[in-house]
Amino acid sequence: MAELLNGQQRTDMCGNLTAESTGKEVTIMGWVHRRRDLGGLIFLQLRDRSGIAQVVFDTDFCDRQLLEKASQIKLEYVVSVSGFVRRRTGNNVNPNMKTGEIEVVATQLKILSEAETTPFSIGDESANELLRLKYRYLDLRRESLQKNLIVRSKLYSIVRNYLSEQGFLEVETPFLGKSTPEGARDYLVPSRVHPGEFYALPQSPQLYKQLLMIGGLDRYFQIVKCFRDEDLRANRQPEFTQIDIEMSFVDREEQLMVIMEGLIAKIFKEIKGIDVKLPLRRLPYSEAMDRFGSDKPDLRFGMEITDITSTVKDSGFALFDNCINNGGTVRCIVAKGLCDSLSRKEIDKLVEFVKTYRAKGLAWYGLGKEGVKSSFAKNLSAEKLAEIEKTAGMEQGDILFAVADKYETTVTALGGLRCHLAKKFNLIQPDKYEMLWVVDFPLFEYSEEEKRFVAMHHPFTSPKNEDLPYLLTDPARCRAKAYDIVINGDEMGGGSMRIYNRDVQRQMFEALGFTDEQIAERFGFFVDAFKYGTPPHGGLAFGLDRLVMTLTGTENIKEVIAFPKIQNASDLMTEAPSKVEDSQLEELCIRCVEEEKTNA
Amino acid sequence: MAELLNGQQRTDMCGNLTAESTGKEVTIMGWVHRRRDLGGLIFLQLRDRSGIAQVVFDTDFCDRQLLEKASQIKLEYVVSVSGFVRRRTGNNVNPNMKTGEIEVVATQLKILSEAETTPFSIGDESANELLRLKYRYLDLRRESLQKNLIVRSKLYSIVRNYLSEQGFLEVETPFLGKSTPEGARDYLVPSRVHPGEFYALPQSPQLYKQLLMIGGLDRYFQIVKCFRDEDLRANRQPEFTQIDIEMSFVDREEQLMVIMEGLIAKIFKEIKGIDVKLPLRRLPYSEAMDRFGSDKPDLRFGMEITDITSTVKDSGFALFDNCINNGGTVRCIVAKGLCDSLSRKEIDKLVEFVKTYRAKGLAWYGLGKEGVKSSFAKNLSAEKLAEIEKTAGMEQGDILFAVADKYETTVTALGGLRCHLAKKFNLIQPDKYEMLWVVDFPLFEYSEEEKRFVAMHHPFTSPKNEDLPYLLTDPARCRAKAYDIVINGDEMGGGSMRIYNRDVQRQMFEALGFTDEQIAERFGFFVDAFKYGTPPHGGLAFGLDRLVMTLTGTENIKEVIAFPKIQNASDLMTEAPSKVEDSQLEELCIRCVEEEKTNA
Repeated sequence: MAELLNGQQRTDMCGNLTAESTGKEVTIMGWVHRRRDLGGLIFLQLRDRSGIAQVVFDTDFCDRQLLEKASQIKLEYVVSVSGFVRRRTGNNVNPNMKTGEIEVVATQLKILSEAETTPFSIGDESANELLRLKYRYLDLRRESLQKNLIVRSKLYSIVRNYLSEQGFLEVETPFLGKSTPEGARDYLVPSRVHPGEFYALPQSPQLYKQLLMIGGLDRYFQIVKCFRDEDLRANRQPEFTQIDIEMSFVDREEQLMVIMEGLIAKIFKEIKGIDVKLPLRRLPYSEAMDRFGSDKPDLRFGMEITDITSTVKDSGFALFDNCINNGGTVRCIVAKGLCDSLSRKEIDKLVEFVKTYRAKGLAWYGLGKEGVKSSFAKNLSAEKLAEIEKTAGMEQGDILFAVADKYETTVTALGGLRCHLAKKFNLIQPDKYEMLWVVDFPLFEYSEEEKRFVAMHHPFTSPKNEDLPYLLTDPARCRAKAYDIVINGDEMGGGSMRIYNRDVQRQMFEALGFTDEQIAERFGFFVDAFKYGTPPHGGLAFGLDRLVMTLTGTENIKEVIAFPKIQNASDLMTEAPSKVEDSQLEELCIRCVEEEKTNA
Repeated sequence: MAELLNGQQRTDMCGNLTAESTGKEVTIMGWVHRRRDLGGLIFLQLRDRSGIAQVVFDTDFCDRQLLEKASQIKLEYVVSVSGFVRRRTGNNVNPNMKTGEIEVVATQLKILSEAETTPFSIGDESANELLRLKYRYLDLRRESLQKNLIVRSKLYSIVRNYLSEQGFLEVETPFLGKSTPEGARDYLVPSRVHPGEFYALPQSPQLYKQLLMIGGLDRYFQIVKCFRDEDLRANRQPEFTQIDIEMSFVDREEQLMVIMEGLIAKIFKEIKGIDVKLPLRRLPYSEAMDRFGSDKPDLRFGMEITDITSTVKDSGFALFDNCINNGGTVRCIVAKGLCDSLSRKEIDKLVEFVKTYRAKGLAWYGLGKEGVKSSFAKNLSAEKLAEIEKTAGMEQGDILFAVADKYETTVTALGGLRCHLAKKFNLIQPDKYEMLWVVDFPLFEYSEEEKRFVAMHHPFTSPKNEDLPYLLTDPARCRAKAYDIVINGDEMGGGSMRIYNRDVQRQMFEALGFTDEQIAERFGFFVDAFKYGTPPHGGLAFGLDRLVMTLTGTENIKEVIAFPKIQNASDLMTEAPSKVEDSQLEELCIRCVEEEKTNA
């Protein structure tokens, strides 16, 4: 029954027809989204990427044969309809539909492709997600998903045009690279030509982009897939997309941040119509931790952390006193007006919640309608309590949550609780965007495991100039020329200025306790490359998937990727990964040992 | 000795300084390209991505200390120079240098990074290529290579902007896909989560892009890496870049070709300043084979193939007669005026050359200064020879080369010889671009091996509408809605309209002799997808690397890729592929069997 298109041209996209099109002869093509058969009158909703238009087969304008043909159409048939645009009147106007003021009166119809009943209703987001992933090509017909992919496409374009204007060259770096023992787990690719040897898919083009700077390319960018073979958490994909950037002849963070926040402003202007005020706030890492207990603070709401260590010092309450005497800290957040909204049971859940941050406990003190409710008030004097209320800025109706622990545990637990409460009580205004740079990260962190300082980012991250004298004498105080850009509590990207000076690099390696042999073994040709004239340079990478999620307001990464994988890294549509022919493995000189394992 | 940049800002790029900059206070940064020390006067050539500027340290403008510092500078040091631009006078003007009218008189110098002596001289293309590949980051400083990468970057931008304007969405497709038994050899990626199973890196996003059309995305493009694990020929890379395109609601080749040749015209205008006359020539496959012996004919020169079968029929010359009686053909090309330029020895080499095309031999007949020279003239009558001369359009000084063989062997051998001679005798005008579409490809080709018809492209390529009745009755006459774009004898891209009609698809599979089981097994979920409403669609892919080679006039693919691999698919810089840790393989449940093989 299906017919050939035979070169027929579409004149309009369905979603673009408006009252202004009235009277126009049109040919539209798309999928049948809805149908209503009233006997002598058949209504179709025809859908394409742009939207939906109503088509009417009316015997005033079409013969019985056409009506008969139209009556055979089922949902998701692909058809071409020619006719004219007519203005709808009275009750027929549909104000909820972009094209609701008009309809296309059909005079011609071609059924281009028939459709069997789809395994789920097109556009139904409540249909089982696994089923929708198996038939991803059908779920891709969903308007919300198409809109996200359109935003994603627009984003590529904005990023590329902006960076090109700023003199950045787009350069492709290899996918078949070398496996390095550092970092996350590599995806490996066996080499057939070199049996027993493997390529690795890139976790990021970090080395290549720095080599491009050493090679004099000056400014580089690339929108590129990266790979990490990790056990996937929610919203992670084994392959993800990065906007990767590096530039030469800069050594101050500001020089790069100014260009990058310009990009962010442009993205939000063009995609969301939002004017971002520049420069963005710069928040030192230490302040972010102190105030928000996070290096990616969500600034859309308050509830900042207050240090009450000196207030509760020597209060006689063992929990606080022991903590402080052991070098710990006591800090709190205040949930404004929420005291009476939290039952004892709910508070107990919050106590459990902070334990996921390794906090030993959560103290609480609320000023409710029916008086004070607290886990510790009975242990403190009224004066102390009043002092705490004052320091923490408490008022009637508020409830305070305090953690007494090591600094990092304390602030991260309170930071986590802060976000948890904001979500639970809807304290976050929708469509609000709070963007900032977190800067002045520590250069090193102490590894309890290895009993030495390790690089917080990587050993090529430049220290702050003013901290250079302390590289070997006081590593803990050294800060890095590193920066993260944070929007609404999510890290959108980060980077650093790199070391380009060989003396600094030597000291850095010494501070990390590397021997010359270890340097050669771990960093090989990359360290060699620095010998031949390295420009000052620095860069950054944005997480593109995350950025699209923020721009489209989705919390499910699968909603911004055309063909995503599920948590066990498999693709339900293609059924990848899969078994392969024995001959393929033989050519690669590898053998699967799974069976042997199972039998053992 | 090296100093920190400390936030100093570059004011200009070296190559952009002109006479108009005279008097300007500037700060430029780059690599020391050349140096000349005349005692009280030191000249440096400073190089960055934009070009080279001369810097002079002159004691009239700088103190002894600065001169002393400048005297310590070696080649490839990275420096920052501040000073003012001075117009050069008299003999000092260098007309061969873009910035040759000016020099920068230095008043300040920072040595940002020292450099050891480089393993080869920067920019020296004659240095050993393997050495240059090992130190690719140094070879990347070469002007010619940077220029190619700049063209490549510009090309990305033109392509994306053009296609976006035409309503194409950029969509990323997965790299971790499923291995398919069809086509070239896949690169495999072992799955850790699913032991014994493998992903495959895409040979092209063909399935995904058709699924995007089924998913209603309407128009798609992507500039994307593809992978083929083949034994590399020259100018092939295991990973290569494709401009991948697909569009819906078209079923005639012209509908797509018009958009794509618009893109080609835009590329040539913006990158080469060349006005391409549109529409490009459309040459049917059969005519391309007849006239040029190639489906990617080079039209920059003549020397077309002439059919002399009927002329030499029954000539009494066994070689020709036997061939014709066996259903073969006798055809020739005429090399104008080259008879006396070809020695007997050289002609013998041409005879060997055509054998690489499986031609059994090459007959030749030249009208030289010293009379006729020929491999067959003595076997033919003077009348026949005169007839041949006339048919082939020969004149004094010309030489004719004829092949008598099966049609395909004959024309491809002559087509190859035609290009060989054109190259050998420089018949091709440089900077000439001859572009065309080759169309009307056969739908099937007969596989001698399998004793059946196989799809020339793939089984989803649409037949010509007018050939639909012959799909099952006369496959050999069926032509495909396929098209290749050819520039200067190189295929730049190709594609086809796809089958979207289930009846046609069914006939196609029947013509190919597939059973339902084979269809399910070979094409699996992809065939299923066509059940739910498929729009008419078609697409094309350009080979981006090849396109950049054409635009930059290089014949070495490594000159258009930042980090290329050599013929054995290894990267000399990173030394990928390489051995990996045993623990990595254990996690993947695979084992290398090379050793066992060696020991066996």
